[in-house]
Amino acid sequence: MKTTAVIMAGGKGERFWPKSRTNYPKQFLSLTADGETMIQKTVRRLAPLVAQEDIYIVTNAAYLDLIAEQLPELPAENVIAEPCARNTAPCIGLAAAVIEKKYGEAVMFVLPSDHLIHAEEIYIDTLRKAAQAAQQGNNLVTLGITPNYPETGYGYIRYVRGSGKDGVYAVERFVEKPDLQKAQEYLADGGYLWNSGMFIWKTESILKNIRQHMPDLYEGLQPIVQAYGTADFDAVLKDNFCKLPAESIDFGIMEKAEDIYTIPGNFGWDDVGSWLALERINETDEDGNMLSGDVINVDSKNCTVCGGARMVAVLGLEDVVVVDTPDAVLVCDKNSTQDIKKVLASLRAHGREELL
Amino acid sequence: MKTTAVIMAGGKGERFWPKSRTNYPKQFLSLTADGETMIQKTVRRLAPLVAQEDIYIVTNAAYLDLIAEQLPELPAENVIAEPCARNTAPCIGLAAAVIEKKYGEAVMFVLPSDHLIHAEEIYIDTLRKAAQAAQQGNNLVTLGITPNYPETGYGYIRYVRGSGKDGVYAVERFVEKPDLQKAQEYLADGGYLWNSGMFIWKTESILKNIRQHMPDLYEGLQPIVQAYGTADFDAVLKDNFCKLPAESIDFGIMEKAEDIYTIPGNFGWDDVGSWLALERINETDEDGNMLSGDVINVDSKNCTVCGGARMVAVLGLEDVVVVDTPDAVLVCDKNSTQDIKKVLASLRAHGREELL
Repeated sequence: MKTTAVIMAGGKGERFWPKSRTNYPKQFLSLTADGETMIQKTVRRLAPLVAQEDIYIVTNAAYLDLIAEQLPELPAENVIAEPCARNTAPCIGLAAAVIEKKYGEAVMFVLPSDHLIHAEEIYIDTLRKAAQAAQQGNNLVTLGITPNYPETGYGYIRYVRGSGKDGVYAVERFVEKPDLQKAQEYLADGGYLWNSGMFIWKTESILKNIRQHMPDLYEGLQPIVQAYGTADFDAVLKDNFCKLPAESIDFGIMEKAEDIYTIPGNFGWDDVGSWLALERINETDEDGNMLSGDVINVDSKNCTVCGGARMVAVLGLEDVVVVDTPDAVLVCDKNSTQDIKKVLASLRAHGREELL
Repeated sequence: MKTTAVIMAGGKGERFWPKSRTNYPKQFLSLTADGETMIQKTVRRLAPLVAQEDIYIVTNAAYLDLIAEQLPELPAENVIAEPCARNTAPCIGLAAAVIEKKYGEAVMFVLPSDHLIHAEEIYIDTLRKAAQAAQQGNNLVTLGITPNYPETGYGYIRYVRGSGKDGVYAVERFVEKPDLQKAQEYLADGGYLWNSGMFIWKTESILKNIRQHMPDLYEGLQPIVQAYGTADFDAVLKDNFCKLPAESIDFGIMEKAEDIYTIPGNFGWDDVGSWLALERINETDEDGNMLSGDVINVDSKNCTVCGGARMVAVLGLEDVVVVDTPDAVLVCDKNSTQDIKKVLASLRAHGREELL
């Protein structure tokens, strides 16, 4: 059976402001010393498993130029530009329908464009195993990550104890982002995994579930899919896509469907969720500082400093993040990196759209 | 008797890096909301007491253009450009000799170019009183500042208890910058003042003392003074000035001379010695932040942020100084502002002279 991949690249990545902007979000940034951007990594690491012409990207129309620039090797017709953001269910449904129309039934990896994988060989082996599991019946397979601390920023997957068969576990239920106490309970319990947002299924399986659990979406997709491959596609997509129900695949399908399985992954996954991630995914100096670019440090500890075109001098700081760009600089306490959205709200309130 | 002023404007002001640079030191910066630079304030506030044509500036040759730009009203011949830095004694000695040659005996205010005075009327009244005291015998008069905390960054003046006459006190001795314990003792004692570096005397008095206590300096000044007012002056100054002994007026004269008096000043003096001064001399918001320029603050407290051409966003910080300039940004803990010299040393060590 044909193996395809759908990379979801419509996210705004606001938590990496001021490097990420509305017109230049996180997936197009290089956050590691090798200079590769997040989406370039995502595509490149699929090479052992998926042919280039079978990799699809669903993104915002505003990012088409960035994708053409960063991924010139991908066929232009494999890039589907959403005319507006409708969350993940319409995005995935459309991709599934398009792929089925083109290939007939196929296995489909659904992958975020802005995560980091440290052990790529193990990752590919895990995806291969997931593809096998997905070919049974109408299985919907997710990759779960075994937690090692009580993270409150992720959703969790509860698997059925004793159900493991060759590393594949039946899913009991999906759980929304918990508070700290709940997260600590999940960690202690041992029966919960982080929801990585990576899914593997046959096109037939997910479309069947969409027809059953999100009939409006299923109906709404039909005229778009019929137009796919014709000269009318762009116009039909534009006329119809924004009317689709804005829903996440987790809430719309995964929390309702039968035959859900998970494979606990162990491939060095990092969602690179905030500036704090940089000290995890890059080298730090003996004082715990992650310094990149033109930076002079005197007596600072555990700081993350991303220089730009100008020299950044940090002096006597502790636990501070500094990010320099040509038109804005962010200086942020490490405990406040999740509040960057407040800065963006303030910029909006002050009419500073040029900085968003 | 003619009243003149000599403003010493050769300082490098490194503690205000990155706004101050080798070619643009503190005295030429505006550090207050009114936009006036430090040296402009220094000249302007003398207006009730000294005619413009009687105000002299001794500075580094590199700053002549800045002075012409910021003080276009001053006669060009009143600006004496030191070909090299030789500390304050040669600077003051040369100015005294030049003024005496031009006017005969005159009263001379010797004033730093980079201090702030909040109560200018009281300051002028104090200088007027000092001028009167300076006309008696060969008195050397200094303005002392009554301390209100144990500052370790200033020299101190011990006055003779019971010597006060119309607000003028005899000086027992000058004391070098103390450690904290000593400074606390001085504060508790009540008999010590801060040495403000402002002096008042007749040209005859200081020249007599230079001849007595620094005869090499006195001799070295003669050919320069003889050339003053002639076409040869620049060449003679260049040939001779750098050979003068590099010594401070405090060490070379004030610690050795007789007839030293001090007037305890009470005119809201601030030497604006580091970035920390900005929150004293400018308005702060309800969270203790001093924000100037294009700054967005979310949840920060007691921070000093000087924006430049770019937007600076500060988020969740406490006690941090951020200074933005076109080619360098400084982010510094408030407890480390005195260590800016370490940043400059690092820049020098890395061959980054363009940023100094």
